[in-house]
Amino acid sequence: MIKRSEVKLAQVRAAEMLSRVGITLTGEEQKNIEVAEFGLNDLKKTGLELVIYVNTDRYCAKELVLFPGQTCPEHRHPAVGDDPGKMETFRCRWGKVWLYVEGESTNPLQAQVPQGSEDFYTVYHEIELNPGEQYTIPPDTLHWFQAAGEGAIVSEFSSTSRDEFDVFTDPRIKRLPEIEEDL
Amino acid sequence: MIKRSEVKLAQVRAAEMLSRVGITLTGEEQKNIEVAEFGLNDLKKTGLELVIYVNTDRYCAKELVLFPGQTCPEHRHPAVGDDPGKMETFRCRWGKVWLYVEGESTNPLQAQVPQGSEDFYTVYHEIELNPGEQYTIPPDTLHWFQAAGEGAIVSEFSSTSRDEFDVFTDPRIKRLPEIEEDL
Repeated sequence: MIKRSEVKLAQVRAAEMLSRVGITLTGEEQKNIEVAEFGLNDLKKTGLELVIYVNTDRYCAKELVLFPGQTCPEHRHPAVGDDPGKMETFRCRWGKVWLYVEGESTNPLQAQVPQGSEDFYTVYHEIELNPGEQYTIPPDTLHWFQAAGEGAIVSEFSSTSRDEFDVFTDPRIKRLPEIEEDL
Repeated sequence: MIKRSEVKLAQVRAAEMLSRVGITLTGEEQKNIEVAEFGLNDLKKTGLELVIYVNTDRYCAKELVLFPGQTCPEHRHPAVGDDPGKMETFRCRWGKVWLYVEGESTNPLQAQVPQGSEDFYTVYHEIELNPGEQYTIPPDTLHWFQAAGEGAIVSEFSSTSRDEFDVFTDPRIKRLPEIEEDL
């Protein structure tokens, strides 16, 4: 659960970060920035801000905004019907992001697993993405990512998004935002 | 046919335009910028510069750079095998671009059809795209586009690209660049 006032603040902050790096949104897009707090009620630590440019039955493109140190928790995109699962390419536009996928564990990690959620992070193969660097995550592959100290902006190019089918390692997580109206 | 020296100059110019708006490329990507001169030997008027970020069997993402007044000539993306034809979303990042698609003709046009090629431009429904504005072109739909006086940078999100199957209205056009080595 996240309060409407907190959603609005996060939208303004995300729009400012995008604007600062020269990414222009329409007024409608700014109002519709998705603030994913994942049901853990700790947006600063575990959360993600998303601008969905387009999501058709063939492809999808989004801009992902991470505040400093913010983490998108571990999940995978399973097969749904004829779809083998979402395949996605992350391209860092600004800042620095550490992406973790299945594979040989990196030690030590540069990211910090969110305190209290250690049990729900299981893949530790680290990929550091700086501006201009990108990585493609195969379908149905566990992954999570965290912004470094300044935050990050990441373009996501992918097959169709069906967020409601995402499988999170942490059973407490709810992917689709539930907003408490306090304004 | 285009000379290698001309390709190199266009690559540098495109990379500079991208850099100016904060879009970072790796060194490898800069070297691989595709300079499409379409076989008309008049890159300044009819041409397009492309950075291909990713092109999988499911989706594709590119950055398109248009120099001032440069035109990408009329074409469509036909069905190929099981693929109903490429569907693509153009999102203007910088500058201004006029996109023409099938539909009611706009009159007068803001763009100028390239002189000497008037016979090969047949669709005139105008869509003006400024930064933050986007438009999705259905599969197998004729379209062409031209940058306004400062040039333009356009992000393209799409289904898989199979450029070799593109159908151009102008039979003189060759989509895949042929380069004369003069360096």
